[in-house]
Amino acid sequence: MQLLLLTGFEPFHGERINSSWEIARQLDGELIGGLQIKSVRVPVGCGKAARRVTGAIVRYRPRAVIGLGEAGGRPCLSLERVAINLADDRGNHARSGDPGVTPVVRGAPDAYFARLPLAAILRELDRKHIPASVSLTAGAYACNALMYSALHHLRRKPGVPVGFIHLPYDARQSPRHRSLPSLPIPIMENAVRIAIAVIGRSLA
Amino acid sequence: MQLLLLTGFEPFHGERINSSWEIARQLDGELIGGLQIKSVRVPVGCGKAARRVTGAIVRYRPRAVIGLGEAGGRPCLSLERVAINLADDRGNHARSGDPGVTPVVRGAPDAYFARLPLAAILRELDRKHIPASVSLTAGAYACNALMYSALHHLRRKPGVPVGFIHLPYDARQSPRHRSLPSLPIPIMENAVRIAIAVIGRSLA
Amino acid sequence: MQLLLLTGFEPFHGERINSSWEIARQLDGELIGGLQIKSVRVPVGCGKAARRVTGAIVRYRPRAVIGLGEAGGRPCLSLERVAINLADDRGNHARSGDPGVTPVVRGAPDAYFARLPLAAILRELDRKHIPASVSLTAGAYACNALMYSALHHLRRKPGVPVGFIHLPYDARQSPRHRSLPSLPIPIMENAVRIAIAVIGRSLA
Amino acid sequence: MQLLLLTGFEPFHGERINSSWEIARQLDGELIGGLQIKSVRVPVGCGKAARRVTGAIVRYRPRAVIGLGEAGGRPCLSLERVAINLADDRGNHARSGDPGVTPVVRGAPDAYFARLPLAAILRELDRKHIPASVSLTAGAYACNALMYSALHHLRRKPGVPVGFIHLPYDARQSPRHRSLPSLPIPIMENAVRIAIAVIGRSLA
Repeated sequence: MQLLLLTGFEPFHGERINSSWEIARQLDGELIGGLQIKSVRVPVGCGKAARRVTGAIVRYRPRAVIGLGEAGGRPCLSLERVAINLADDRGNHARSGDPGVTPVVRGAPDAYFARLPLAAILRELDRKHIPASVSLTAGAYACNALMYSALHHLRRKPGVPVGFIHLPYDARQSPRHRSLPSLPIPIMENAVRIAIAVIGRSLA
Repeated sequence: MQLLLLTGFEPFHGERINSSWEIARQLDGELIGGLQIKSVRVPVGCGKAARRVTGAIVRYRPRAVIGLGEAGGRPCLSLERVAINLADDRGNHARSGDPGVTPVVRGAPDAYFARLPLAAILRELDRKHIPASVSLTAGAYACNALMYSALHHLRRKPGVPVGFIHLPYDARQSPRHRSLPSLPIPIMENAVRIAIAVIGRSLA
Repeated sequence: MQLLLLTGFEPFHGERINSSWEIARQLDGELIGGLQIKSVRVPVGCGKAARRVTGAIVRYRPRAVIGLGEAGGRPCLSLERVAINLADDRGNHARSGDPGVTPVVRGAPDAYFARLPLAAILRELDRKHIPASVSLTAGAYACNALMYSALHHLRRKPGVPVGFIHLPYDARQSPRHRSLPSLPIPIMENAVRIAIAVIGRSLA
Repeated sequence: MQLLLLTGFEPFHGERINSSWEIARQLDGELIGGLQIKSVRVPVGCGKAARRVTGAIVRYRPRAVIGLGEAGGRPCLSLERVAINLADDRGNHARSGDPGVTPVVRGAPDAYFARLPLAAILRELDRKHIPASVSLTAGAYACNALMYSALHHLRRKPGVPVGFIHLPYDARQSPRHRSLPSLPIPIMENAVRIAIAVIGRSLA
């Protein structure tokens, strides 16, 4: 059985839940598009997230890798297009030009494009009426570091799909963020299933 | 049987559908919280919308009135708090201080507050994990004109709940508005049912 | 000499400055469009702000009243069109339908429109290339309470212009709010001078 | 005399002016921080912009390169951190995962980081109270293609600073985009002078 490694983050910033892990956990063990889901929980922080995902890749030798992460404020599911070699642990994207900023992997390329069939995933999400878009930035914090380090680690295995999906706020968080968009968890969980099915089909 | 008048708008701005009417039509005839839904389709335009809703109130003598309308770009369902006596048929809210702007009803008060149990509705939507908020402006176009004229027409019947709910983009419109939030129609339809049930309970 | 009462707020929310008072103080004593500016500093809070502005109106008997206030996140100067009879001291507009919410003035109308030549002011700001728009909500907190209570207090003197201008973040606050718009103080100060000149001309 | 190549774009999308070229033209020939400005007007379109900037680099052999471009809707000046090898001539960032999308330079790296003293520039803009931030995406259209191709062309000359600054709407465009932030041209022009002075100082 081929595995798809699916990562989700621990709650942070005082939130009690992190929808990325709720969804990953929910899908753990499911068989979707010929891929068995292996879900792994990842700590928040650039270095820790990078180490956990590369460790899981070494251990599980997955056929595909998808990271999930929250991006509160985004209007819909974001299929990330690119990960950059920039690890800003203060989570302050606006100042990521500062000297204190360090690379995710020293000496490695400035960025890697996602290796997912983004257009096909987007088309399928559109068909199912699930709000989604392709995003040109995964930020410069733990989500980006996880995506970058997975892509870097698997850079010599271009046949392994690797990518990242950012989730908007979960509707249960809406009461604390009423001026920002959110989506119900079941909609987002379904979207991740659809994305995995498209990836599975592309590997068949 | 007591009626709840539920209005939705015709498609406009080149859109093929208007989710407000899709939802209203879907609920037409349903019995929710002891109220039977009577759905009415309303033309877009301040004067036309105002005349249609007051005509429907005269004809159906509803026990409660809820208007639905699209507000593309809003992050979630908006329970409108206030309607103002300003009819800007150019739909250009930004210039609604211009001399060309006319009142919805000449000589009438500057504004009316919604007469809905907003806090109870919001609480129930929160409990069901449906993203919603209370909004302080319904704009100055047809949605506001409809809400204002219904509140004005029923100003001497304070026991009749009257209000307006703005809907974000429907997820089927998402491909044309990817940078803006949207929600699947079934979620929004369910939200309207919940709101009506709360209103029905408040009348019991 | 005819006075124009110009109010600005004290700093709050841990900010060291409040651009509304910085600008009001800067203009204090100036003669613009035949009106002498009398600037008054106002505490933040619905009741306190309402009492301070009505007290200043009683004391100075101004020929016109303009309130200034910060609205961090707004894209440009906002000429407020309407003040509503809703005082939400938790500053939580999103929940202002809650039962805890009280009116600014008990038994008074739901709202008052601003009494300023908004279109003429906007035209003049456009001509001078200063970003501005007409806004349909002044919120439900201290700014709105101040505007509402001034309009209510002067409701029998329709010849006295009364209004409110919301300011975006001041550019000095930009480093703490980099994802939000801001404008340099001198631009906003100049915008207020222009608005006052238009008001003065409309009274001549 | 050492030259700094400063590019601005032609007007497009039916706009009569493009503030990026207005500013570049204004600075043409000025001596700032020991660098003489050589301004070049660039056509809109990925391929055309890429060819024009590399042509200008070949011809003028500049000591530094800065591209300017409009990004209507951005809240302030954006110092771009990264350019990606993705040329989406439909300007539809949301679908840039589509198969129709082509690289800026075939076979070249996925991205290049800007080579500007971003933190020092940001600090100086903060000190002068000019709203600015570091951005993690320059989009996937002509601005990004220009930035990418300049960085790629000069990849073996790491001592040559190369970067891109996105400008928000110019305040003269504000009347057509009232719900979006804008800044007066002189503020933005001054910001570009400040950035160039910091670059000049870093080369001294």
